[in-house]
Amino acid sequence: MSAIDELATELSRLPGIGRKTALRLTYHLLRQPPEQSRKLADALGGLADRVHRCSVCSNLTENDPCDICGDQRRDRAVVCVVEEASDIGAIERAGEFRGVYHVLNGRLSPLDGIGPEDLNVGRLVERVAPGTVREVIIATNPSLEGEATALYVQRQLAAHVPMISRIARGIPVGGDLEYADGVTIAQALSARREM
Amino acid sequence: MSAIDELATELSRLPGIGRKTALRLTYHLLRQPPEQSRKLADALGGLADRVHRCSVCSNLTENDPCDICGDQRRDRAVVCVVEEASDIGAIERAGEFRGVYHVLNGRLSPLDGIGPEDLNVGRLVERVAPGTVREVIIATNPSLEGEATALYVQRQLAAHVPMISRIARGIPVGGDLEYADGVTIAQALSARREM
Repeated sequence: MSAIDELATELSRLPGIGRKTALRLTYHLLRQPPEQSRKLADALGGLADRVHRCSVCSNLTENDPCDICGDQRRDRAVVCVVEEASDIGAIERAGEFRGVYHVLNGRLSPLDGIGPEDLNVGRLVERVAPGTVREVIIATNPSLEGEATALYVQRQLAAHVPMISRIARGIPVGGDLEYADGVTIAQALSARREM
Repeated sequence: MSAIDELATELSRLPGIGRKTALRLTYHLLRQPPEQSRKLADALGGLADRVHRCSVCSNLTENDPCDICGDQRRDRAVVCVVEEASDIGAIERAGEFRGVYHVLNGRLSPLDGIGPEDLNVGRLVERVAPGTVREVIIATNPSLEGEATALYVQRQLAAHVPMISRIARGIPVGGDLEYADGVTIAQALSARREM
């Protein structure tokens, strides 16, 4: 396969990038100075080597524990539970939340064969078991799967945590936390209700 | 900068990829096996090293001359002039053309400061000067800049080539007259053929 076809094939494996877009990007890179492709290649190469899961919260990070778990100014008594590590970035950009996180690495989805045992919930129960956590905010997406996941997590934690809350449906139902704007996320956080 | 931000920044330099899409692609890659990022990185790294300009037609190629210029079955007496190397792929996919190509590497565009001296025309005049070329088909885009470029190229070649033609402009096959612009309809009418 030619170098052009090879790159176009690899690019077209990315979500939302079809064959024509992949070719357009490839020819764009060929028109740029070679440094641009090299810097992109380096950034990609570094990704898998440098980024790992935080052993505390399962966030994607280059340090262990991650910058948030390691930050002494964050309130460890408030844990925000999210589906994916990318949701943490979305909440952090809202700039409202000063607690710590826990990443489930997915949501309950029987159709996709994803059950409770596939979620990172056991580690969450361990984290709250000592009784030092005052509140758990469940920030799974307000979708069918996200709600089922929230309910499941709430039941697992109920015995250990005095207050379990759910972010408000300021985020449109069926939407995706990753794409929500900061104001909406901030409102959803401040309007949270006890479960 | 973190590895995630670094990759998102490099991806967002690509045309049509904004900050949010770049982050989405980055997190997608983090969910895939690391081989996928590495293969993409390798394909990118190989691009600048392996792909060069053909010394004959300026096509982007890994061989010199390129596969088309080196193909003895192609008719060297017919040269199709295009703006960009990516246009060659589009014409080749149509499977109609059996001549060779010449890439101008751009189009006349005074607003962008691109003048005749920036186009790969001198080499084209050299190619046709010996008098072995029977026809030059000018296949620049039917835009304002493409038409100006076509006219300029035609003038440079007029003394050397018996026939200089321009690709037809008209309603695209499968297109709809109702949605075609007035200029295109006018062109399609004036270039009508007897049935």
